[in-house]
Amino acid sequence: MAEFKLHCFAQSGNAYKCAMMLACCGADWEAVRVDFFNGETRKPEWRETYNEMGEAPVLEHGDRKLTQSGVINAYLARHFKKFGPEKEEEDLEILRWVLFDNHKLSGVLGPYRFINILAPKAPDPAVLTFLKGRVDNALAVVEQHLGRQPFMAADRPTIADFSCGGYMFYPADELTYDFKVSHPNISAWMDRIRALPGWKPPYEMMPGEIFRAQR
Amino acid sequence: MAEFKLHCFAQSGNAYKCAMMLACCGADWEAVRVDFFNGETRKPEWRETYNEMGEAPVLEHGDRKLTQSGVINAYLARHFKKFGPEKEEEDLEILRWVLFDNHKLSGVLGPYRFINILAPKAPDPAVLTFLKGRVDNALAVVEQHLGRQPFMAADRPTIADFSCGGYMFYPADELTYDFKVSHPNISAWMDRIRALPGWKPPYEMMPGEIFRAQR
Repeated sequence: MAEFKLHCFAQSGNAYKCAMMLACCGADWEAVRVDFFNGETRKPEWRETYNEMGEAPVLEHGDRKLTQSGVINAYLARHFKKFGPEKEEEDLEILRWVLFDNHKLSGVLGPYRFINILAPKAPDPAVLTFLKGRVDNALAVVEQHLGRQPFMAADRPTIADFSCGGYMFYPADELTYDFKVSHPNISAWMDRIRALPGWKPPYEMMPGEIFRAQR
Repeated sequence: MAEFKLHCFAQSGNAYKCAMMLACCGADWEAVRVDFFNGETRKPEWRETYNEMGEAPVLEHGDRKLTQSGVINAYLARHFKKFGPEKEEEDLEILRWVLFDNHKLSGVLGPYRFINILAPKAPDPAVLTFLKGRVDNALAVVEQHLGRQPFMAADRPTIADFSCGGYMFYPADELTYDFKVSHPNISAWMDRIRALPGWKPPYEMMPGEIFRAQR
């Protein structure tokens, strides 16, 4: 049995943040499929057993069950002594970008992509436009930031990069953004992450097939 | 001059998270008005001087300028040795709820309230409905959680409570939720926070008048 179990599914950028971390730490881990699209994470049994928040990912390590990608990756950074802070300033700076990501970046790009291509019901155009405007604003902040430094929170990759990049490695047609064209600094940063030993794209690390909602 | 300066405005629940923390720590602090509604936080000067993310709050302490309410409160918890974790499990549990708050609770209740009563343009009804559905889901998680324990992340108040409560202490007509009626566990928890020495409601701690957008 692997040392770490990550309950995840291929479409979850939040789970992918942890999959990238486990892979790039060289962890002994396995992916356990969560049947998100049939509502598994929202069922009472899931909430009782794994996560009252009704969400994936969940990391199992020994008797521990951890939830929230930012918690899982902070825990793994301490465990492996990799991709974490080396001093207090870095600790605060990493947390700053992980929070920004949860609030403004993945926290909006995730739902935007979900209603656009994965939800059974076609999205309301006004909702799509609203979310896209917010994604644009968050991406502009990241694009400008990465014009000044190679990684989000330090001169080396940290869990802040895995957090902010969680949704960005999905195919351009899923995101409606082609960063090579629209955001060159983000695109160059993604190449630096792709170069990390162990890195793989989301559909090669987590269970589940690529699909688009049939409407 | 006060030891801590919090750049904030009365309508910002994110700033209020820090104002509550400063007040309940008995800090020597002053509130500095941010002219958010005239776009101050989105101007290049603000981004260069205070926060490239284009947001309030910002905490100044000596030479430090800290942004993101979750970073500011983690820093203050260490400084005052109050409302922070006492062991690793608590550290992870506090972070877990602060992230949930940023992602699903304040991260959606904030924009929902903003477009509903503060934005110059009347909101699209489909966007309001979409956001309200997400707020309802997040509030249901918190309501159930607070049926099992008195505070969000421990048996005592922590910065996770100030985070999750950031937007909840605004008037019911701003939120469109009257927690006393709709969410009794949340309402009882709010009373426990109100009882903390130093606690005050948002419009009594931060500069700015109550208003509603005239449309």
